Amino acid sequence: MEPSRKSYALEAIARQLSGTIVGDATLVITGIEQIEIAEPGQLTFVGGKKYVPLWEQSRASAALVSEGLVVEPGPGRALIRVHNADLAMAEVLALFEPPAPVAATGVHPTATVDATATLGAGVTIGAGCFVGAGVQIGAGTKLYPHVTILDETRIGAQCILWPGVVIRDRCVVGNGCILHPNVSIGADGFGYRPAADGRSLVKIPQIGTVTLGDAVEIGANSCVDRGKFSATTIGAGTKIDNLVQIGHNCRIGRSCVIAACTGVAGSVTMGDGVMVGGCVALRDHITIGAGARIGGGAGVMADVAAGKTVLGAPADDYLQAMRQFAALKKLPDLIKHLKL
Amino acid sequence: MEPSRKSYALEAIARQLSGTIVGDATLVITGIEQIEIAEPGQLTFVGGKKYVPLWEQSRASAALVSEGLVVEPGPGRALIRVHNADLAMAEVLALFEPPAPVAATGVHPTATVDATATLGAGVTIGAGCFVGAGVQIGAGTKLYPHVTILDETRIGAQCILWPGVVIRDRCVVGNGCILHPNVSIGADGFGYRPAADGRSLVKIPQIGTVTLGDAVEIGANSCVDRGKFSATTIGAGTKIDNLVQIGHNCRIGRSCVIAACTGVAGSVTMGDGVMVGGCVALRDHITIGAGARIGGGAGVMADVAAGKTVLGAPADDYLQAMRQFAALKKLPDLIKHLKL
Amino acid sequence: MEPSRKSYALEAIARQLSGTIVGDATLVITGIEQIEIAEPGQLTFVGGKKYVPLWEQSRASAALVSEGLVVEPGPGRALIRVHNADLAMAEVLALFEPPAPVAATGVHPTATVDATATLGAGVTIGAGCFVGAGVQIGAGTKLYPHVTILDETRIGAQCILWPGVVIRDRCVVGNGCILHPNVSIGADGFGYRPAADGRSLVKIPQIGTVTLGDAVEIGANSCVDRGKFSATTIGAGTKIDNLVQIGHNCRIGRSCVIAACTGVAGSVTMGDGVMVGGCVALRDHITIGAGARIGGGAGVMADVAAGKTVLGAPADDYLQAMRQFAALKKLPDLIKHLKL
Repeated sequence: MEPSRKSYALEAIARQLSGTIVGDATLVITGIEQIEIAEPGQLTFVGGKKYVPLWEQSRASAALVSEGLVVEPGPGRALIRVHNADLAMAEVLALFEPPAPVAATGVHPTATVDATATLGAGVTIGAGCFVGAGVQIGAGTKLYPHVTILDETRIGAQCILWPGVVIRDRCVVGNGCILHPNVSIGADGFGYRPAADGRSLVKIPQIGTVTLGDAVEIGANSCVDRGKFSATTIGAGTKIDNLVQIGHNCRIGRSCVIAACTGVAGSVTMGDGVMVGGCVALRDHITIGAGARIGGGAGVMADVAAGKTVLGAPADDYLQAMRQFAALKKLPDLIKHLKL
Repeated sequence: MEPSRKSYALEAIARQLSGTIVGDATLVITGIEQIEIAEPGQLTFVGGKKYVPLWEQSRASAALVSEGLVVEPGPGRALIRVHNADLAMAEVLALFEPPAPVAATGVHPTATVDATATLGAGVTIGAGCFVGAGVQIGAGTKLYPHVTILDETRIGAQCILWPGVVIRDRCVVGNGCILHPNVSIGADGFGYRPAADGRSLVKIPQIGTVTLGDAVEIGANSCVDRGKFSATTIGAGTKIDNLVQIGHNCRIGRSCVIAACTGVAGSVTMGDGVMVGGCVALRDHITIGAGARIGGGAGVMADVAAGKTVLGAPADDYLQAMRQFAALKKLPDLIKHLKL
Repeated sequence: MEPSRKSYALEAIARQLSGTIVGDATLVITGIEQIEIAEPGQLTFVGGKKYVPLWEQSRASAALVSEGLVVEPGPGRALIRVHNADLAMAEVLALFEPPAPVAATGVHPTATVDATATLGAGVTIGAGCFVGAGVQIGAGTKLYPHVTILDETRIGAQCILWPGVVIRDRCVVGNGCILHPNVSIGADGFGYRPAADGRSLVKIPQIGTVTLGDAVEIGANSCVDRGKFSATTIGAGTKIDNLVQIGHNCRIGRSCVIAACTGVAGSVTMGDGVMVGGCVALRDHITIGAGARIGGGAGVMADVAAGKTVLGAPADDYLQAMRQFAALKKLPDLIKHLKL
């Protein structure tokens, strides 16, 4: 781990977490680490039974321990007992978070900002950024170097746009959104019609836009295409991982989680709170009900009911898919046995 | 939908489409929208029987209707009867297309254009673009901000390169091509040989290039690698969606359509007019015959004959694959029944 | 093929390869090409029996021929007999490699380099690059235009960073690494915890970094996320293709090869020399033993032992997976036969 520039008395950490110290309360914590590789001075966590023996061997000075686990600090070490060590750890990580990189203050002299753009208070526009005509950027939003925002796009307050982000014209980004490096928002949807010659293809204009709700996060090199007519929409609080494709006209709900390398074809409707694993393929024009869960690697070819969990390709009910996986392993011997 | 800045008399639209108005011909149309969410003043389309009841409930003022459908305009509304409402809609979208974003005129002062580069008439080079030595760019081609073109690449006329596009050295792009944000053209192909130590790998130089035919469109964050010896080629009129990988030495035909998240390994040969669904994996050194269709999510491990449709992983004839999908669902109960 | 600017006497090539010329030793070679499309003046290769009849029809002037193949040069042509024509070809490619594009010398005037950054001897910083506070760049490293390196990242010597590469803060890149266009290194890992309201999600800070060993190569538009606590690490000599995702906390070994469009979820441990095919999905928190091989399109849901080869989704032993593929093809008729 990089040497942390921050350190805290164990007592201060315990107070922040409303936790109880067992053992040496005078320790100073200089960083956080996984239990197997933590070093003296570092805090780790014991979130379940399997971590208890690892704690005994760990070089960490202290650990967050979930309720109900039987574990002792050992000599010169300490535990902080909390309700849930995993959740507590997320809070401690925030304490040790290093400062954000300082890529610019105000508008960098090498940036190009159109005279008709409107920048809120405290906006940062990094080196080489381009901000087009009529663009609006809300207070406190930070553009790292090499971000491009084309005409009339509106971005909310307190957003972070990492280098290489491209947002095309007329899109809308909510407040508190994070767009990771090389994200592409608002490219044309993928639509063609056959030309009169019956062989070549004519591009169908994609005159819609993209709308991202508040607190949306989109991972590195992911893409959200603009709608054909109206907006492709991503609901507030939805988190999208790296290398994900969201096709044109999709309507993704609030607080969804979509893991990396997933492709969502055009005109998919997804309810609130849907969880999609990595490397999933969703075909076009289907509806995924609120709270549905789609297992990693699934190929979803039909609607999924709200609350349902599916898996496999083609995707099926989770338990059915698990039975199919097990059955497929037996199939070669079955066929051999039947002398087919 | 974003408020459209354009409006047309319904009659003007009907004339453009050679369609026939039924109902109120005096309407003014201010935008286009899907039938479920269209609002008064907007035009929608009724492309099949299932849309007829939706039209009755729609708030749209007018609809394009395909031949042979029994549907009435209703009070204060109108229909335009056309041969094919879907195709007609693509034409109407062009009428309502907003103007392209104005990212620059001529060569932006922050762009770097090598003295030996040649720019055709009316070329636009956006803010921060880099155009290397010996690059040639045809008339009317537009580079949005932050496009990088390395040495001796030749780009045709009337192309659009969106922000973040990178084209490496010595590549060739035809006329009328569109490259969406953060596309990477001409990166080294993926080739190594074992080093003398038997453990590490030595890079095989990739001295070839990439050639894109006329009217090729490549989606956001997609990649086409340069050939090992000669050019990786994409035929004229081929349309590639977002997050697609085209490996080195591929020879993709004309007017192919390759949907998002598809990976085409090295040295694949694809005939003209091949259609590839999303999230497809094609292994290296195979041949896909002209007009073949590959279903979404397929894993293609062998040649596909011209005109054939395949599906599944490993991909099989479409009907066989559908039978396998259905059979797999029955397999767990079969095995239970046989007491295996 | 692009006209090569280099030419060599056949004798010079044979000497370089320690090969033996059969036929006309006075030929001059102007380029290299695949056997089917090579032209007079070009060198091709005959690496196995299947190429022998192609050589007879080829227009190439000369060929590298592997030991043990029975083949004659034919009139006016020549062969160079070598131990292994494939490996020899990789050496010849280096002879014909064109010069690297000249995107800058020293620090381009449009680049922004923080006053606290340290640049080694002979470093090239291309047009529009951004190099943040405290960044260290080793001797001879070349940044093509539009590369962004954020605060305190350390890059070794003799690296090549192609346009559009983004490396976030505090990452470490070894010597001799190659990062292809639009690569994103060090974006936040994908981690959230439920908010107190039970519906929305709170971002877990990702305070770790990324460490790339020496001679790592990462393909266009690929992503390596920063760790939650410590570093996501890629071992020395590992080669990663385009559009690959490496999740947070992964520990990838040395000299691994990961083909395009593969998604490696968080906290995966991979030993040395692992080979991963294209379009593979690896779930989180699994271990892939040294020297394991994962076939293209596999979905790996569990640990893979060292040296093992797996295939399929869910992945299984290679031979078992091949038997399952074959059995699945027979399943529809089996079920029909059993009148199910």
